[in-house]
Amino acid sequence: MANKRNGSQSVKFENPPSIITAASIVGPKEGLGPLKLYFDEILDDEMWGEKSWEKAESKLVRETFSKILKKGGKSPKDIDYIIAGDLLNQCIAASYGIRDSEIPFFGVFGACSTMAESMSIGAMLVDGGFADNVVCITSSHFCSAEKQFRFPLELGTQRTPTSQSTVTGSGGVLLSSNCTGPYITHVTTGIIMDMGIKDANNMGAAMAPAAVDTLLVHFRDTGFVPEDYDLIVTGDLGYVGKNICEELVLGQGYDMRDRYNDCGLMIYDREQQDAHAGGSGCGCSATVLSGYIFEEMNKGNLNNVLFVATGALFSPTSIQQGESIPAIAHAVRIQKSL
Amino acid sequence: MANKRNGSQSVKFENPPSIITAASIVGPKEGLGPLKLYFDEILDDEMWGEKSWEKAESKLVRETFSKILKKGGKSPKDIDYIIAGDLLNQCIAASYGIRDSEIPFFGVFGACSTMAESMSIGAMLVDGGFADNVVCITSSHFCSAEKQFRFPLELGTQRTPTSQSTVTGSGGVLLSSNCTGPYITHVTTGIIMDMGIKDANNMGAAMAPAAVDTLLVHFRDTGFVPEDYDLIVTGDLGYVGKNICEELVLGQGYDMRDRYNDCGLMIYDREQQDAHAGGSGCGCSATVLSGYIFEEMNKGNLNNVLFVATGALFSPTSIQQGESIPAIAHAVRIQKSL
Repeated sequence: MANKRNGSQSVKFENPPSIITAASIVGPKEGLGPLKLYFDEILDDEMWGEKSWEKAESKLVRETFSKILKKGGKSPKDIDYIIAGDLLNQCIAASYGIRDSEIPFFGVFGACSTMAESMSIGAMLVDGGFADNVVCITSSHFCSAEKQFRFPLELGTQRTPTSQSTVTGSGGVLLSSNCTGPYITHVTTGIIMDMGIKDANNMGAAMAPAAVDTLLVHFRDTGFVPEDYDLIVTGDLGYVGKNICEELVLGQGYDMRDRYNDCGLMIYDREQQDAHAGGSGCGCSATVLSGYIFEEMNKGNLNNVLFVATGALFSPTSIQQGESIPAIAHAVRIQKSL
Repeated sequence: MANKRNGSQSVKFENPPSIITAASIVGPKEGLGPLKLYFDEILDDEMWGEKSWEKAESKLVRETFSKILKKGGKSPKDIDYIIAGDLLNQCIAASYGIRDSEIPFFGVFGACSTMAESMSIGAMLVDGGFADNVVCITSSHFCSAEKQFRFPLELGTQRTPTSQSTVTGSGGVLLSSNCTGPYITHVTTGIIMDMGIKDANNMGAAMAPAAVDTLLVHFRDTGFVPEDYDLIVTGDLGYVGKNICEELVLGQGYDMRDRYNDCGLMIYDREQQDAHAGGSGCGCSATVLSGYIFEEMNKGNLNNVLFVATGALFSPTSIQQGESIPAIAHAVRIQKSL
């Protein structure tokens, strides 16, 4: 069952939890992108009737959670745990978003790796017999993230070519002990990697080594190779980080090129949408997973997916104090049927 | 084994994980308080040779982790997971503190409830068979917290009587599948409670209802009553919140008065140490648990402890935007021998 340590970072589930439903809501820009038909709702504007971007982001979480319950045919009493987090200081999008739920809550922080982190913990809680139903949910918002991490939006500051654009969106899944699939069969939990990158506008480069490490550890621990997957997807390395990741993994003997993509590249049309190196934010990989990947698995177009969400664990304060950017990546293996 | 939902929020462990060691480091003020003999190390100054308070807080986490390994006789390769978080934006104390550990890492955010949250998840990972050894660790720092949540320290802003003083300190435990005790036999995971308190200088009042709710749910779910415990300890409600909690729980028929205390009241001498309503911060309940409670259990002076860490899930931004303060509390039942 569980692969305990001795160098291993992976767990194989005895009773693989199912992803029984998923939901996603995105902002207007994401609603113009190539995945627009996969999202449950597209906002007309970034405020969504709220008085601040932060409140709008909390609403994204709240409404995505409601959609998950509705699509899954569950009431709040059926849900054992919510595991959620986001990028905002003190994770207020998650806390305020689900404060009325009356469901046991674990807050998590993994920056843009949060979706994979919450799914990893959630899957262990289900497989371990502690829960029948766990909701894993995360969010990000372009405006609240720009304000918090970079510059006031009103300045119209020019972005560097390697910068990524934070996705406005929330995505979530309902993990269950019901055997309906798609199944989470394995998770590989990452270690923190810090290769000394100090440019907060080049998070792809900062996070790529963490993705590489987790991918190689996953292949080593589980015996799977890229050919076992229809899709290996990182999120969110963007254009710069994806190329670094692909090349470094290839250098170790694993050729993922014909089946590898990155959520940050999938969510926008880079040529048409002025997204520089691509999308980022907890909501990026969360909405691509909850929208595109989940639907394509249910259609049978994808059968084996390795979802590797990546996070940059810095803050504006740590950057101002001259620190480099630690990063982490967690892998979740999803299989259509057992 | 696990109590799944149907209104239950508690889990009873089949193979209760042991707390095989614990470590704590505190700042100079905490080192003058009534628990000073229980901590592993007391700093001479808040900077600890670093160039910023944030770096000093990361060092607290790093060194506490080292002490846990040393006291537990473990090497990093023995540790399956680290579960850690703190109060700083994007949880940088934890991320930078353990970035060199090369151990699978889950970041959590529960504000001052983080210690109980990380122990709850950690205990499930051990009992569920996913890990043999999990380190749960958290921290806070008076100066980094004041700077981030309140006013620049240099201003010398006067504090309100209901305000609490953030503890400088880090505490952590090593949970293990080894049957040595003390054991975590049950956990009760809280829901978010928000009774409309908007005064960020009265967190005790904001958090007390969450503690009350989790205590009552714990008694209802498990059948335990206050008399089953030597010590029921919340953290950190301080003077205001503790009185509210005690009275509300009493109103529901549970008299905890002769065995109830609060980590925020235990760590300082309120009369001598100018701590207003008491201590707070992730590091408060973490160091009281890792120092005082763990040692007194090992001495046999405490045999059954209910550790209920409480967190206020707000941010300065949410307060500035007129929001009230959501709070949460998680309970961990610790038993000396089975």
